[in-house]
Amino acid sequence: MQKLTIKRALISVYDKTDIVDFAKFLSENGVEILSTGGTYNLLLENNIKAISIEEWTGQNEILGGRVKTLHPKIHGAILNKRDDESAALKLDNIDLVVVNLYPFEKLVAENNKNLSELIEMIDIGGPTMLRACAKNYLFACPVISVSDYEDIIDNIKNGGIPQDLRFRLAVKVFKEIAYYDSLITDTLSTFLTKDLNFNNKMTVTLKREINTRYGENPHQKASYYSIPTFKEDSLSSFFTDGKIWGKELSYNNIADIDTLILMLSDLENDSAVALKHQTPCCVASKNSPLESFTRAYEMDKVSIYGGIVGIKGVVNGELANILSNIFLEIVVAEYFEKEAIEILTKKQNLRLMEYKNFKYKIFDDTNIKLKSVIGGVLVQEKDLSSPYDENIEVVTNIFPTDDEIFDLRFGQTIVKNTKSNAIAVVKDRVLIGVGAGQPNRVGAALIALDSNPELTKGAVLASDAFLPMDDTVQLAAKYGIKSIIQPGGSIKDEDTIKACNRLGISMVFTKTRHFYH
Amino acid sequence: MQKLTIKRALISVYDKTDIVDFAKFLSENGVEILSTGGTYNLLLENNIKAISIEEWTGQNEILGGRVKTLHPKIHGAILNKRDDESAALKLDNIDLVVVNLYPFEKLVAENNKNLSELIEMIDIGGPTMLRACAKNYLFACPVISVSDYEDIIDNIKNGGIPQDLRFRLAVKVFKEIAYYDSLITDTLSTFLTKDLNFNNKMTVTLKREINTRYGENPHQKASYYSIPTFKEDSLSSFFTDGKIWGKELSYNNIADIDTLILMLSDLENDSAVALKHQTPCCVASKNSPLESFTRAYEMDKVSIYGGIVGIKGVVNGELANILSNIFLEIVVAEYFEKEAIEILTKKQNLRLMEYKNFKYKIFDDTNIKLKSVIGGVLVQEKDLSSPYDENIEVVTNIFPTDDEIFDLRFGQTIVKNTKSNAIAVVKDRVLIGVGAGQPNRVGAALIALDSNPELTKGAVLASDAFLPMDDTVQLAAKYGIKSIIQPGGSIKDEDTIKACNRLGISMVFTKTRHFYH
Repeated sequence: MQKLTIKRALISVYDKTDIVDFAKFLSENGVEILSTGGTYNLLLENNIKAISIEEWTGQNEILGGRVKTLHPKIHGAILNKRDDESAALKLDNIDLVVVNLYPFEKLVAENNKNLSELIEMIDIGGPTMLRACAKNYLFACPVISVSDYEDIIDNIKNGGIPQDLRFRLAVKVFKEIAYYDSLITDTLSTFLTKDLNFNNKMTVTLKREINTRYGENPHQKASYYSIPTFKEDSLSSFFTDGKIWGKELSYNNIADIDTLILMLSDLENDSAVALKHQTPCCVASKNSPLESFTRAYEMDKVSIYGGIVGIKGVVNGELANILSNIFLEIVVAEYFEKEAIEILTKKQNLRLMEYKNFKYKIFDDTNIKLKSVIGGVLVQEKDLSSPYDENIEVVTNIFPTDDEIFDLRFGQTIVKNTKSNAIAVVKDRVLIGVGAGQPNRVGAALIALDSNPELTKGAVLASDAFLPMDDTVQLAAKYGIKSIIQPGGSIKDEDTIKACNRLGISMVFTKTRHFYH
Repeated sequence: MQKLTIKRALISVYDKTDIVDFAKFLSENGVEILSTGGTYNLLLENNIKAISIEEWTGQNEILGGRVKTLHPKIHGAILNKRDDESAALKLDNIDLVVVNLYPFEKLVAENNKNLSELIEMIDIGGPTMLRACAKNYLFACPVISVSDYEDIIDNIKNGGIPQDLRFRLAVKVFKEIAYYDSLITDTLSTFLTKDLNFNNKMTVTLKREINTRYGENPHQKASYYSIPTFKEDSLSSFFTDGKIWGKELSYNNIADIDTLILMLSDLENDSAVALKHQTPCCVASKNSPLESFTRAYEMDKVSIYGGIVGIKGVVNGELANILSNIFLEIVVAEYFEKEAIEILTKKQNLRLMEYKNFKYKIFDDTNIKLKSVIGGVLVQEKDLSSPYDENIEVVTNIFPTDDEIFDLRFGQTIVKNTKSNAIAVVKDRVLIGVGAGQPNRVGAALIALDSNPELTKGAVLASDAFLPMDDTVQLAAKYGIKSIIQPGGSIKDEDTIKACNRLGISMVFTKTRHFYH
C-alpha cells in the first residue's frame, strides 16, 4: 500500500499540548501549515511558518469563530480524490488534518449546568474537518489525538503515512466524535422534561475509569467505565474516589459492591450486610453498626470468608477489631473513625471504601440498566421501589404484629436484592437464612429455613415473587414461621391464603414483584 | 418563550418520504426553500418553488456532491445569532434545516462488506448542517426525522416553533448523529486487525428491536436492543426472526434464552436443557434429543414448571408430545418437525424458537459483555473457553476413567453457565443435582448432592471455581462421588488432593475458572 506524503497540513487544536514541537517537525520537513485562531498565533510566536485559514480561503472569520473552516476551498482540499476531476477543478490538497475538539467533557466533569455555556462548547467546524478527512483516508490523514503525533512523526521520517495507520486514525475519529455527540446528548437530555431513553436508537457513552486486572475470570479482559454525565447526584465516582485504602478493585469486587450498595440504600441506618458472589449471607438492622454486624455475622460464619461487608453508618474501633479478625476483601461504610482506620489498614489485602462524600443515592439521572444478551442488550429501568415504602395488604384472618411487619419489610428488602428465586427467613431484623438463585421456590424456602433451623420458630419469611402454590406455606409452618410477605398474584393465591389461615400464619401481599437475576 | 417564525428553510433529504407535502406546506406558508440535488429536482417536478443551493451560494457543487453545503454563506445563515454582528455582516438567515442522512445503516443491514461503498455512504455535509442548526436552536430549528414534519406543520399553523420543541429536536440531532457515528465506528472496526474496544472512550450502538411489556418486574420499563453491526455471524436477529410461534417474548424470557443458548452452544449435539430463572434444572447429553430430554426431566420435575427448554437438535412428534404435557414458556430447538409444530402450536402461551437459520455461534464480532453497576458499566470479554476443549491435569493417584472424564467435562459445562458459586453432580451425561448462586461452596455442593441423593453413588462433581478447602471432598465422599473437576489454584490444593487420595476419589484440575454471576 502506498504511503501518503504530507505536503500541506491544517492544524487547529483546542488542546495545545505538544503542538509546537509537532508543527515544527512538520514545517522543517517541508509541510505547508494552514492554521487559525489561537493555534495560528502560537505557531507564529514560536517562529513556525504558517498561513492563516482566512488568508488561504480569502474569507474572514465570522461569528466569533463559529464559521471559519466551513468553506468549500478547505473541504474541497480535504475531500478531493486527487484524480482528474480534482485536477480540472484546480483543487488544492490538504493531506493532514490535525484537529481536536472544544472540551465539552470538561464542562461535564465540572458539573457545569449552564445551558448556554454548554451549547457554546459544542464544536461544529472541528468534527466536520475530521469526519471529512476520515472519509477520505485513502488520500488524507486525520489526527484527533495528541497521543498520535509521535506515530505520525515516525512515519513521516520513514517515507510517509501508511494506509493502515490512516484507516485506524479514521476509525478513531468516528469513535471520538460518536463519544462527543453521545456525551452532548446525555448532557442536554438532563434539561429535557421528556426522557429520550427507550427510543428506537440509543448510544451509551462510556469513559474508562478503572482497567481491572481481568474480568469475572482471569481469561477475560475487563474495565470499569463510568457514564460521565453529571456526577453529583450519583455515586458514579465512588469506585474511583471512594476507596481510602487498599489495592485495586477487581471486576468481581465492583459487581459485589454494586449489589451491596443497592441493599444498603434500601435498608435502615445502622444496618450491616455481608455478601459473597453478589448474594447476601449476613444482614441485620439493629441499633448500631456494631450490634448489626455482630448479630448478622452469628448467623453465617462460613460464607463471609473472602466476602465483602457494608455498614450503613460509621465503623468505630470496636467494630474494626471484629472485622479485622475475619478474612474480608472489602469494607464499605459511610466513614471509618481514625482508630478503625489504624486497625484495618494493617491488613494489606483489605480495601476500605467510604461513601460520606457521595450523595447516598444509587440512581443515575439516566436510570437505565443494561444486560448483554445474544446480539444486543436488554435495557430496563432500575427497580426503584423500596419495600419499606410499599403498600401491604393483610390477606389472612390473622394479622401480623407491628414488629412482624417491620421484619417482613426487612426481609422483603433482602430478597429484592438477592438473586431470584429468593426466599429470606428473618427474626428481629436479623437474617436467619436465605435461599438464593434457585430454579424453584419451595427449594429456595427449604435452603433458607434449613440454614439455622433451631432459630426459625417465630420468624417470618419473605419471597421476591408470588408463591405459586401452598407448598411453601406448609413447609414454613413446620419450621414455626409466624408470618409471610409476598407480592401475591398467583391463580392459586386462595389456596395459599387458606393454608396460612389453617396453620396460624399471617400473610401480607405487596403487589410488587422484585425479581433480580 | 418566543416562537420562531420560519422564513427560509434548507431542505436536503436522502429519505424523500412525505417531503413533497411538507415542502408544499412550507412554500404555501411563505417560506423560501433552498434545496439541492435530488431533493431540489423532486420539488421542481412537483411545482414547488425552490432555489438551488448552488445558485444561492454562487458555488457549484463539486466532487460528486461531497462538497456542496460546506459553505460560509450557508453556515453563516444557520449559525448566526440574529444580532447586531449578524446584521453588520449582512448575513442571511436559514431558520429551518430539514436534512436526513445517507442511509449508512441500510448497508449494515444488508451486510455490505465493501469498504469503499460503506465509506461513500458516510455523510459529511448533512451532519454538519444539522449539528450547526442544533447548536443554534435559540434561533433556528433542525429536523432530522420524517416523523417530526407533522409537529412542525402544526406549530407553524399555531404561530411558530416554540423553543422547547426546537431544543428537543436539537437534542435528537445529537442523539441520531451519535448513533450514526457509533454505527460507523462499529462497522469500520470490523476491518481493523486491532480491537478498538477497551479504549478510554466507548459508545455502545443500540437499535430497538423488541419493546417488551415490562422489565424484570412489571414496574420497570424495558426494551431489547440489538447491536446492529454485521448480523451474519451471530444470532443477533434470533430474538426477532427466530420465533416461529407464540406471543411476544418478555424481558425475562430473553434473559433466560440467552443463558440457554450459551449452555447449548457449549454442549454436544442432541443435548437437552431446561432452565428457570437463568438457572439450569435439567440437563442431559444422550444419543437423541428425545432420550436427552426424557433423562434430564426425570431428575427435576418441579423446577421446570413455567421454565424454558432448549434442544440442540430436532424436535420430533414424540418429543413434542412429552413437552406438551409440561407447563413451559418456550422451547428452543434447531428446528421442529411438522408433526411437532402441529402438537405444540395447540398451546397458546408457548413460544417456539428455531435457530436453524442462524449460524450457531454465540459470539458477536465485538465480543463485549456489559453489566450496569453504580455510575457506569462493567465491560468485559465473554467467557469463550469451552470445557470440552480445556486441558485437564489429573492431580490424584487415582485416575478417572474415560467415561468419567466425559462426565467431568459435561459437568464443567453446566457450572460454567450456572450462577456462581455453582456445583453440579452428574452421571452418564445426566445432571443429577445443581447448587447455584450460593455464597459458599460447600453449601452449593450440599444442595447439588442432596437433590437426588439416591443417585449420587458413582457420580462425578464439577465446581466452577477452586475448592478452597477439603470440606467439599469429604462431603462428596459421603455421597459416593467418584471424581471431581475444578480449576484448582487454592493455597490449600494439597489438602484437597490428599483428601481425594485418602477417600478414593480422582480429581482433575482445569486451571480455567468459570465464574458467571
